Amino acid sequence: MVQKGTTICAPATSGGGAIAIVRISGPDAIKMVKEIFKPSDDQIDIVSAKGYSLIFGTLSSADEFLDEVLISLFRAPLSYTGEDMVEISCHASHYIQEKIMELLIRSGSIPANPGEFTMRAFMNGKMDLSQAEAVADIIASDSEAAHRLAATQLRGGFSAEIEKLRQELLHFAALIELELDFSEEDILFADRGMMTETIIRIRSLVDTLASSFRLGNAIRKGIPVVIAGRANVGKSSLLNVLLQEERAIVSEIPGTTRDTVEEVIHLGGLMFRFIDTAGLRKETVEDKIEAQGIERTLSKVSQAAVVLAVSEATDNPDDIISFYNSVKNIQTAPGSKIILVVNKTDLLTTGQTGSLRKTLTDSGGFAPLFISARESTGIEDLKQHLIRSVETGGLKMPQYIVSNARHWHALINVSASLERALKGFRNGIPTELIATDIRQAIYFLGEITGKITSDEILGDIFKNFCIGK
Amino acid sequence: MVQKGTTICAPATSGGGAIAIVRISGPDAIKMVKEIFKPSDDQIDIVSAKGYSLIFGTLSSADEFLDEVLISLFRAPLSYTGEDMVEISCHASHYIQEKIMELLIRSGSIPANPGEFTMRAFMNGKMDLSQAEAVADIIASDSEAAHRLAATQLRGGFSAEIEKLRQELLHFAALIELELDFSEEDILFADRGMMTETIIRIRSLVDTLASSFRLGNAIRKGIPVVIAGRANVGKSSLLNVLLQEERAIVSEIPGTTRDTVEEVIHLGGLMFRFIDTAGLRKETVEDKIEAQGIERTLSKVSQAAVVLAVSEATDNPDDIISFYNSVKNIQTAPGSKIILVVNKTDLLTTGQTGSLRKTLTDSGGFAPLFISARESTGIEDLKQHLIRSVETGGLKMPQYIVSNARHWHALINVSASLERALKGFRNGIPTELIATDIRQAIYFLGEITGKITSDEILGDIFKNFCIGK
Repeated sequence: MVQKGTTICAPATSGGGAIAIVRISGPDAIKMVKEIFKPSDDQIDIVSAKGYSLIFGTLSSADEFLDEVLISLFRAPLSYTGEDMVEISCHASHYIQEKIMELLIRSGSIPANPGEFTMRAFMNGKMDLSQAEAVADIIASDSEAAHRLAATQLRGGFSAEIEKLRQELLHFAALIELELDFSEEDILFADRGMMTETIIRIRSLVDTLASSFRLGNAIRKGIPVVIAGRANVGKSSLLNVLLQEERAIVSEIPGTTRDTVEEVIHLGGLMFRFIDTAGLRKETVEDKIEAQGIERTLSKVSQAAVVLAVSEATDNPDDIISFYNSVKNIQTAPGSKIILVVNKTDLLTTGQTGSLRKTLTDSGGFAPLFISARESTGIEDLKQHLIRSVETGGLKMPQYIVSNARHWHALINVSASLERALKGFRNGIPTELIATDIRQAIYFLGEITGKITSDEILGDIFKNFCIGK
Repeated sequence: MVQKGTTICAPATSGGGAIAIVRISGPDAIKMVKEIFKPSDDQIDIVSAKGYSLIFGTLSSADEFLDEVLISLFRAPLSYTGEDMVEISCHASHYIQEKIMELLIRSGSIPANPGEFTMRAFMNGKMDLSQAEAVADIIASDSEAAHRLAATQLRGGFSAEIEKLRQELLHFAALIELELDFSEEDILFADRGMMTETIIRIRSLVDTLASSFRLGNAIRKGIPVVIAGRANVGKSSLLNVLLQEERAIVSEIPGTTRDTVEEVIHLGGLMFRFIDTAGLRKETVEDKIEAQGIERTLSKVSQAAVVLAVSEATDNPDDIISFYNSVKNIQTAPGSKIILVVNKTDLLTTGQTGSLRKTLTDSGGFAPLFISARESTGIEDLKQHLIRSVETGGLKMPQYIVSNARHWHALINVSASLERALKGFRNGIPTELIATDIRQAIYFLGEITGKITSDEILGDIFKNFCIGK
């Protein structure tokens, strides 16, 4: 929660690196920094310095030199939080950061809660709630697509759209309330047919947004992929060959650590998340028990947006067809895609491959990708199929994508309220009851952008922010 | 090495946190940033903006919005490197940082080598070599004392002192060379007695500096402490009680991770490093074999600056005295301190403790500290003893402290050269040979501040810097 009237401070960078930043925001921010900071140019007084000043100088504690620093000074309301703010850019030593925090706290500043800078920005009208949430998302974005979602939302995204719908409904509600005020005179201010039409239109927009959540969530968290196939068809070699280039990129970025439970690759700006790769890593004995490795995969497939069904080039064509058929019959997630793969083409001659391809098409109606993980052939083609599997089918890209579960829940509630209102109109339900449904829809739309908030909602949103943001 | 004429870029903060910084330095820094950055205030053109400008705006790649950022703009020579520089302060997402690096590299910038920003600062005369080294030290400083050493050096430290000595020797060398030029006329320009005096004085200063290295190194790396004592005297409880408060502090700083092989505590601004605590953690069976736990400790004690010799209050007083004597007889490092401790006073009555204290003093001449790790009594007193052990004895604080092994080696070489020169004077060695020794002393002094450098020296120094510094 915002600690009102106070001046907060927090490190805004995490350990390591060359430079660290400590942020201070609140009415006394500049005064507090003045106590410990001396500009190199003694003509400068930071208390009278203009906003957007960048000043070099030294930080001292009780006359003992602490560090040479740059301070960035901002004045309310032209700052991130909308309050007076100072960012101290110091050497990235834990000792120095600790000491700066200690000095600021001694001057009466208090340590910021997680996300409190952004929460203050929201409270001071610098951004709406969905933009505030996008700040956390943009920091966590690990892929181009996830970044784009967060960046769109940070810049307003569907907030304007939501606000427009909300205004329409508010206008609506006003007309209905007017009718209720004049109810004894039995006047209808609003044309029922037009009202119904409007609500149908709004509801359809809301439903489109809500239905984008599956894609938005997949993009934000990574598109779940499962590799299915019996033991020794080369599932882990395939995963390795896909991961190879990825590893090289990841290791270039300092501080990047990956969760090893799931492997992740980035293709075409999308993040693909390979589920249960631990199983792939240790596939040997257990897998041999199951003839086709399907049983164990069943549970994962239901969570996957893409299933890579891998068979081996030297298998009997009938077995391959039977395997593909069994994968097709598995209960997959709605809109998910299956990509059929024949691995180990290096074990066949070109002629044999051609004849296998023909058999699979003619007898099974299947046109799988032919690859060799060992010789890294056909991999580029497979990557393109992975990317296309997102762009087509169940994961089609709408204009705005909802990636936040809170927004999705609110949209679902809006839709349900409007559905009730529509039914009301159709069934000739008394106007005051319909008014309640409309007001509920307005309430839930307001929750998204923060027109309607409660301490509970705010607490839930900002508790997951990092300190210093 | 510095990549001359180029514009370099690097992330200057490491993963995590709320804000990240990418630094660009070199002749095209501002021009390159202009290609991807658009100020919010379209009156501003960053190419014509003054140094020390702080500008808010958006970063884009091929018209696709990337992030809202603040840029800090500096113009040569008033920047860290002495070149044109820009620092981009963006949201701390790996994706954004990667993308910024990618865009800058596409515009012709090249990734900076480790420490290259600081190396450029040195090359451009913004700091001498020992100050450049202090930049890495200040970042790595983990304690107040280590920070103070690095901060002193960052602000010039003994560089001025070294330079003064070097100038004196240069003056000297000039006089001697003059004599050599006029050698046929057999004129002595320099008074031999005064020369000897000066060299003795300089050498004594150099030796004082060199001898501070042991302390400097201990402060920088942490003062090594060993806890000795037989099994079950409560060595690990003692360590735990010392570590307890420390843990609380450490966990407050995001991103702080400690090497668990050695435990570290901070007392009075000093860092104490407990050696071989892994042994303490698993002391049980093996320890019982050795009667006094001394054997296993022997090897560590030789590296320790402080030995905590711990016995148990319920032990036979004769055994305690014999244990203390055996610790005293161990070969310890020169100047190291032994602190005698009796643990588990909670098992004795006050009367019993008093009588044990008397026996140890009367029969053994020992006045140990009486503590109870379990009840946390006497611990504050023990901490004070630890702090005092550094301030007295072999670890006395001189005005300047050498903490860098490279400086220490150079000082040792200076001292040896001056020693040879002195011997030369005493033994009437020909002036040209003495001149060689003086020139060598000058050379080694020059190495410290960087008046004399080689690619090899520079390579060695900067390879340990982090990227972005």
